This record gives sequence, structure tokens and C-alpha cells, in this order.
Amino acid sequence: MPIRLSNLFLRTLREDPAEAEVESHKLLLRAGYIRRAAPGVYTWLPLGLAVKAKVEKIVREEMANAGAQEVFFPALLPREPFEVTGRWTEYGDNLFRLQDRKKADYLLAPTHEEMFTLLVKDLYSSYKDLPVCLYQIQNKYRDEARPRAGLLRGREFVMKDAYSFDIDDEGLKRAYQAQRDAYERIFTRLGVDYVIVKADAGAMGGSASEEFLSPSPIGEDTFVRSPGGYAANVEAVVTPAPAALPIEGQPAAVVHDSANTPTIATLVALANANVKRADGRDWTAADTLKNVVLALTSPEGKRSLVMVGVPGDREVDAKRAEAAFAPNEVEQATEEDFAKHPELVKGYIGPKTGGFAGIKYFVDPRVVEGTAWITGANEKEKHVFDYVYGRDFEADGIKDIAEVRAGDPAPDGSGPLELARGIEIGHVFQLGRKYAEALDLKVLDENGKLVTVTMGSYGIGVTRIIAVLAEANHDEKGLIWPESVSPADVYIVAAGKDEHIYEAAEKLAAELEAKGKTVILDDRQKVSPGVKFSDAELIGVPHIVICGRGLENGEVDLWDRRSGERRAVGLDSALQEII
Amino acid sequence: MPIRLSNLFLRTLREDPAEAEVESHKLLLRAGYIRRAAPGVYTWLPLGLAVKAKVEKIVREEMANAGAQEVFFPALLPREPFEVTGRWTEYGDNLFRLQDRKKADYLLAPTHEEMFTLLVKDLYSSYKDLPVCLYQIQNKYRDEARPRAGLLRGREFVMKDAYSFDIDDEGLKRAYQAQRDAYERIFTRLGVDYVIVKADAGAMGGSASEEFLSPSPIGEDTFVRSPGGYAANVEAVVTPAPAALPIEGQPAAVVHDSANTPTIATLVALANANVKRADGRDWTAADTLKNVVLALTSPEGKRSLVMVGVPGDREVDAKRAEAAFAPNEVEQATEEDFAKHPELVKGYIGPKTGGFAGIKYFVDPRVVEGTAWITGANEKEKHVFDYVYGRDFEADGIKDIAEVRAGDPAPDGSGPLELARGIEIGHVFQLGRKYAEALDLKVLDENGKLVTVTMGSYGIGVTRIIAVLAEANHDEKGLIWPESVSPADVYIVAAGKDEHIYEAAEKLAAELEAKGKTVILDDRQKVSPGVKFSDAELIGVPHIVICGRGLENGEVDLWDRRSGERRAVGLDSALQEII
Repeated sequence: MPIRLSNLFLRTLREDPAEAEVESHKLLLRAGYIRRAAPGVYTWLPLGLAVKAKVEKIVREEMANAGAQEVFFPALLPREPFEVTGRWTEYGDNLFRLQDRKKADYLLAPTHEEMFTLLVKDLYSSYKDLPVCLYQIQNKYRDEARPRAGLLRGREFVMKDAYSFDIDDEGLKRAYQAQRDAYERIFTRLGVDYVIVKADAGAMGGSASEEFLSPSPIGEDTFVRSPGGYAANVEAVVTPAPAALPIEGQPAAVVHDSANTPTIATLVALANANVKRADGRDWTAADTLKNVVLALTSPEGKRSLVMVGVPGDREVDAKRAEAAFAPNEVEQATEEDFAKHPELVKGYIGPKTGGFAGIKYFVDPRVVEGTAWITGANEKEKHVFDYVYGRDFEADGIKDIAEVRAGDPAPDGSGPLELARGIEIGHVFQLGRKYAEALDLKVLDENGKLVTVTMGSYGIGVTRIIAVLAEANHDEKGLIWPESVSPADVYIVAAGKDEHIYEAAEKLAAELEAKGKTVILDDRQKVSPGVKFSDAELIGVPHIVICGRGLENGEVDLWDRRSGERRAVGLDSALQEII
Repeated sequence: MPIRLSNLFLRTLREDPAEAEVESHKLLLRAGYIRRAAPGVYTWLPLGLAVKAKVEKIVREEMANAGAQEVFFPALLPREPFEVTGRWTEYGDNLFRLQDRKKADYLLAPTHEEMFTLLVKDLYSSYKDLPVCLYQIQNKYRDEARPRAGLLRGREFVMKDAYSFDIDDEGLKRAYQAQRDAYERIFTRLGVDYVIVKADAGAMGGSASEEFLSPSPIGEDTFVRSPGGYAANVEAVVTPAPAALPIEGQPAAVVHDSANTPTIATLVALANANVKRADGRDWTAADTLKNVVLALTSPEGKRSLVMVGVPGDREVDAKRAEAAFAPNEVEQATEEDFAKHPELVKGYIGPKTGGFAGIKYFVDPRVVEGTAWITGANEKEKHVFDYVYGRDFEADGIKDIAEVRAGDPAPDGSGPLELARGIEIGHVFQLGRKYAEALDLKVLDENGKLVTVTMGSYGIGVTRIIAVLAEANHDEKGLIWPESVSPADVYIVAAGKDEHIYEAAEKLAAELEAKGKTVILDDRQKVSPGVKFSDAELIGVPHIVICGRGLENGEVDLWDRRSGERRAVGLDSALQEII
């Protein structure tokens, strides 16, 4: 039976809802696909469920093609396994935690590595049982600080999460590739534009990891790519360290007065006014080393300070800093932090080998042996010039947290990087043995020895993809779904008052359904054609048929929602044209 | 593609798991359908998911036939709507409550009346929009005090919950009947034995309500039925009040000593030894009125006492008491309670018109005007005889909490009741206007006046039905699924070592799948036929085909799992016999 607008649970909205910022969110609300139940928590209306079911069907088919088997885990999970892996704490405020009536701790699962590991441990014990790849399509929970853009960043959302279990690294690589291939097929079938970028494995632990990003100006992820094919999430870009320089022969470090240099620009101006460089060229911001003080908050809530020396021509990238200091949260040190540390002379903070008491000192990868810097002298209104790494100061390690800029060289030498924004729609991880070790998942190998299983984890944001598709497929009048996920194959508008129009539309709908097509039929008798056309454009089924005045000549209009093209065809041939 | 046991994520267990009490639970664990993740919280393995998908498909088809439209609500819901209807508190410890990072209160929804009401209010505004019936199939959460018997009483479970919205009572009755009819079709198609019984509307509020119970000795619900067709949940049985008796001419009340009468039996014996009845017959327990002190705990946690006078030949039924005093929890008063109320003379508590301070006094419906009782005299070692209701004492109301016994007359005069146990598998409610009023769901009627919508609520325990089916369909060797929900249509065992056996089995599987049948194929080459047969019996697909030695004669064995019948048929005719 067609979906009839005369009784479909739907109310389209002419005005943009106040709660929505981005177009996909506005249109999904206006066209009656979803409704907000709480911040970042959405209800699915019938049209939305139809789209969701189509996405899930494609995901299921390609998971089966990749040999993955479907299971279904609870969302409500006990604390213990997450305690063992440390994630009960590491997730910090992002985890929804609760207690049952017996005061036992539970969580709403943000992801299921622990549970899949334990399930395989429960059922399997031998190398003969492996490899196995399991997945689920399930509601996930993350208490996002800033739920955003409707389905793009929700607090309750649907993910397909798959996990592979192998006896050795070769097996893991094969499993990873099989999922990666399946993802390419899924996104291609869904009609989602995507790029695969190197990712930072971050809090998940593990070795190799790639993200599937859908390029979009509203994306929260920045990624880079080079003409030679390098592509990475900005968090994963590793700045190549330049070659060390000889220390011998470098000018000695000299402290200069530097009052009134609140910015790098003023410092560089002062340097060029007062101090000549040995090589004759001008000083630039890249010759300065600014020492940034960051405050880290551990998942347990402990706050501590670190210093990082970065070239003065670059800002710290907040996301790269988060990745570098994971699982801590990172922010700029506050006035309060500085007040507790009078040894940090604001505006004149300099490198400190070994750090200040309780404050470690790290440097950017560009700070290699023999590089000379203008930097703070740890004394009010003083900077030191020609301060050479490896001679005058050292650091506790490298932290690669400076911004990546368009034109920077790709780490693999494949040319200058360009920057773009994208939305993460999939993520594949080679987890390795982290979870299997923590939860003791071992099997007997061919020689009867217990070996730890190696794992991969593979996620797709099912509900997020719907937002991505809506964002990439709309115009000012409404949504324009790709056929793969459209809530129906054909949308028939019965436009007019005569009964025979409705009869013809019903007949056409029945014929299309008999041919296996799904149909939405606007059979509302007291609604004007103008309103019906607006609703058809808003709802966004790509193929629209108008049964109206043309029927007098035995014709209907075929309306291509995407191109806007409308043309009359004979009623008899309409069916064949549509199928 | 068939499900192949050579790589299916499955491990059958020979031993009963310690965690399981009832057969269905043991077998669902042993046969690899589910695994426990936490008390009352289960993981679905591939075979279990296949059964669940079949149940859900039948439910969806019949909901569509009944004109209901599918939506999907979050499980994570904000407190506010539940606060408005009072259920945030009324649910007591049964509700999983949590806070997000901003300390806002949330709950995991046990049922969605509030949210459906608000959704219809959000979208609809006119009588023209009604009637509408919406449903979802969704994970529900209840923090049961005693999760039990696997899927039978879980804390995370799947329900189909539907809600109807009508402008008037006639519409509600039609919607109720449509859902009730759909339930009959669903349970018939699933092959679940059921009875429809009158139910206590209880904490849900509302007027009419019926339960679908599946008769089972392990059921937690007791229900009654009469030869004349009366059927009710024991909580819903309304004891008919007998006719009042004349007070005139009754003997005066007399207080007698009654030391050493700790039980009703000893009291009756003492009465018969010492006091002759005017009518000459012996005293029986039914002539005594015992005054039971109950402690109620309100959802807010407030404890208070009540007294109820019930005939001495009947015990208080805990479930009927819970229903009568809902939403309070009910237990017998403790020693501590009595210690705080020295006016309650234990063993000799008598009726107290108006109750004791802060303790209301209720009576059983059989206590009508003119009935005379032996009852406590509120004085140590004293009982009063011929204590007549309406003359010597009165009550604050009726509480029908005494046990219902086999042989009791049906309230509608349709004969003596018999008692049986059942498992609640569905529940239909005429909610009326309780939720619409609380949440202000009004629409304009034909005259442009705002009227409050009337609602129904209709639930089916999807995951519970799987346990019910397993409980009703098994033998000592394993499960025996009805065809409607079997994880596959046909189960093929390749029994033997010869390669040609496996080839023949694969060919048969492919042919069956080409005909639209789903197949599980036991293609494990290093497993003995005996183990394969045991697994086949445990897993419980009703139609089994054995490809084995018979192939030498061109034959396979068809094995009916339910009857146990095995017979050889020619390979050529096997396909036709199975289809």
C-alpha cells in the first residue's frame, strides 16, 4: 500500500525551526523526518524511519558481503569491563553513568569494544574459531558537551560497530581491509561523497587507523590532502622534523631588553629594530619560539600544567593538542593557573630544561638540535636571542600541536597540503591487542600455546550519514534524496478537484507497487496544488509524478526533483518511464 | 547464502548454565541464542537475532494492517514530561534515572505515553487529523527488583508499544478493538497460546484494560476463568458484595476472653468450645474478621500504615494488595512498625471506626451492613463476638485484597472460578484522557472548540514472547520452534566424511534458498554426526534434513524435530517435500 499523505503522521513546516542551525537539520525537521526530544536526542517520524531503514539495509548487506555476522548488545552495561580497560574513567564527562536500585554502577555504552571482547572470550577458545568479525547496528550514547546540528552530533545515535578478531597481525590486516572495502561499497551505494584520511588512533588505543570523511563546509573535522595523494585528519598529520644543524659556530645567546612586546609581531619588530642577524636577513615570526602554557584535566579531574615551545608564526591547534595529550582535556592556562605559578613570567616565558617544578616542557618537532630562537628569558621584559636547542636548552619531549597550514609540505613528500573540512562518517581501527590483553582474550594456537587475540574496530555513524546526505542533497526548496535512501521510489501528486484525478493517481500507485516500487501518494482532497507541490519539493523524493489537468489529454507530468525538469508523458508510457 | 555452522558465531553448551532456572532460559543460552551481559540484560547472538527479526516482522505487518504507523522514540528521555504526569516519582525504584554532564535529570524510558502525547500535540491540532495510531518497536528499561528467567523479566527488553489518539470515546473503543484484533492475529501467527483476561488498569490510569496471558506453569501472573467465559487477571477480580443483612434482631456484641489464640484455627476452636451460635451451627474461619496491618511505601519513600479487615478464612493476596494500594509498595507491618503503635494490640487487633491516629481502616467487600464477626477487641487476650458492621463498627472504605480461590463464584455469575498461571505477553488499555489532560493535548473539534484527546496504549513484549515460545516449544533435547519464528526454514546436517556428502548438502541448500527458503547448514567437517544431531535438536529448527550414508542410495532423511519422525526420501523428491 502506498504511504498516503491523507493519513500519514506528518506536519510539514513552512518556517525554519528556531532550534536548527544547519540546512540539513532545518529540512529534516521541516519535512517531518525527525523531531527533537531533548538536546541531541531525536525522535524518528515515519518518513525518517523509512530513510533509516534503507541506510541500515545497505550496511547490513555489505557487512554480510564482508563476512561479518550480526549480533546485538545491550546499551545498558555494567561498569566492570570498562573499569578493567580504564575507559570508565577515561571517557570523563562524555559517558552517561547511572546506578541501579542496588547502587551498582552502569553506563550507557558509547562503543562496545569491551563487550565484544568478552563475548568472543565467552564463546571461543581456539585458533580454529578465528577469524571472526561481528557487528551490530545499535543505539549509542555520548554525553557530548555541545550536541550540534541535529543528527550530526547527537547524544543518542545509531552506529554500526564491527569488531574483528584474529590470531595474528596478517589476519588483522586482512580483516581491516575487508571492512575498509565494505565501507567504500557502502558509501558508494549510499551516494555519499567521501575521502579516506589517516587518523589519530587517540583514546581508542591501537596502531593504524583511518577515517572516512565526507567533505562539507559544516564539517567539524579538518583534513589535509596533497597532490600526491596524502590525506589525513589534521590530528594525524605528523610534522617532519628538519635535519639537525651544527651547534659549532653559532652565535652565543644574548639577553635583550624587550619591554612592550605583547605580541609576536611586536617582538619581531623590536628584534629587527635593535638586533642584526649574522646572516643579514630580517628576523621573522618563524625565528621566535613562544612557550605556551596549557592546562590539562585528566579523566579523574586532576588539573596540571605543561609548557610547549612552538614557532612564533603558528598557533596551537586545539584538536591536535587534545590528540597529543589524550585522554586529558586541554585548555589554555588561566589567570588563576598563572597566579599559582609566579615562576611563569607572562609574556616572557622561556624554555626551561627539565621544566619548572611540576610543569614539563615540550617542544614542537621543528625545534631540533642546532636551531636558534628568540624566546622569553623567564625574566620580566627580557628575551634571549640565538638560544640554541641542544646547547642552551632541552625539552622533555616532542608535542606536535602547532596548526597545520595550507602549503605546508605533506609528511610523505607528496607536495604541498591543502586544507578542507569534513564530517566523520566512518572510522576503521587496527586496535591490536589492547582490549584482548586487558580482558584476557586468549586462544590456543596450532601448537597448543595460549596467544592473545588481535582486534580491529570499525564504526559507521548510521544516523549521522542521514544528516550528511541531507546536507549534501538539498536546495532552497527542500531535500533531494539519492534514490538509494529516498523514503519512497516515487512520489505521486494528485493535483486538482476532480474525483477521476484521484482515481488515476491511485491506479498508478497500485501499478507501481505491483512492480515493486514504493510510493508516497499525496491524495489530500482539500489541499491546494501549490501546497502539494511545495510539500513534494520539501520531502524530496527524487521522482515525482503529477496527476492533474493533463489527464484530460491522457497525460501526467514527470518531475525530476533534482534537475527541476518537468515534462508531460502519456499515462500509458508513464509507468514504463518510471520503472 | 545459508548460515554455515562452520563459521557461525555459535558455541552450544552441553551443560545447563548455573545462572538459568527455567527451561526456556537454559535452552536459549545452551543453544546460543542469547548471552547474559548483566542481571536482566542480554546480548543477542546471530541465531537469537534471526528469531527476534521474525517476531518483529509479524508485529510490524499486523500493526500496518491495523492502520498503525511506525515511529521511533529515544530511550533516553528528559525528566520534565514524566514529572508533569507524576510518573517520575510513581515509578519508584523501577525507573533508571541519571543525570547528564549539566546535572539535568534524565530517565531510561519504561514506556512512552508522555512522549507520544507530546509528539501528537506537536504535530496535530484538529479533529481532522484524528484518529491516529502510532507505534514503535524499541528497547525499554525497568529496574526490576528481581530480574528473572532470562528474557521473561529483563531490565532491558524490547517492546512494541502503540498509542491511539481519538476525539471521542467511540473512536477510542474502535482503536482499542483494532489493536485487540491485531494482537489476536499476531499471537495466532506466532503460534503463542493465549487467553485474554480483564486487567487492573493500575498505575497506568484509565478505564478499561485487558491482558493477553500465555498460560504457563512458570507464569508470574495468576488468572481466573469460569465455565461461562469470564476471565481476569487475579488483580482485576472484583469480589461481588453480598446483600446487606438486617441489623434488627442480631445478638448484641459480647467480649470474650481469648488467651492463647495465635491463629484463626485456635480462635475458631475456642469459639466452638465456649460460645454457642444462636443458629446452632459451628463457627468457622469465615465468621472471623482478621485485621491485617499493612505498611505502604509511597513512590516518594514515605511509609504509612493501614488496616484491612478480611474474613479469617482468606489470606491477603500480595498482588491484589499492590493493585489496591498502587502506586504504593505494600508489605506486612514489621515489629518496628508495631513498636511505634502500641495501640495496635498484636493478635487482638479489632476494627476501629475512623481508624487509629494516622492509620485508616478498610474492609473486605464481604463485610457489608449487618454481617456479624468474631474479631479482635483491641485489648490483650480479648475478642468480641457478634460484632456487626453498620451497628458496631464502620470502615473508611473497601479494599478487595483477599485471595481469590478456585471455586469462588465469577463476579458475572458465570460459574465457579478456576485458577491458572500465565505470562503477560500483551496489554491493551483504554487510557482515556489522563495523559492528554496532564500534557494539554487538545484539538479543535468540528465547532471550533478545543477538546481533550482520548488515548489508548497497547503493548507487546517482543523479547518476552521469544522466551514464552521457547518455554512452550521444547523437549529434553532442545528447542522446537514454530515455523513462524524459527531462525531458518530448514536445517541441513551433512553427516559423514565423504566430500560428496558436503557437496550434496551444499547443492540442496542452494536449491532451497533459490526457492526462497532460509537454511542453516551444518557443514562442519571434523565434527561427529552424533554431535551434529545433538546440536540440531538443541537449536530446534522444526524441519531437519540429514545428508549422510543414504546418499549412496540417492536418499536423504527428513527429520521432523517435533514428532521425532525420521524417514528416507529420494534426493530428487526431498526438495519438493520440503517446500
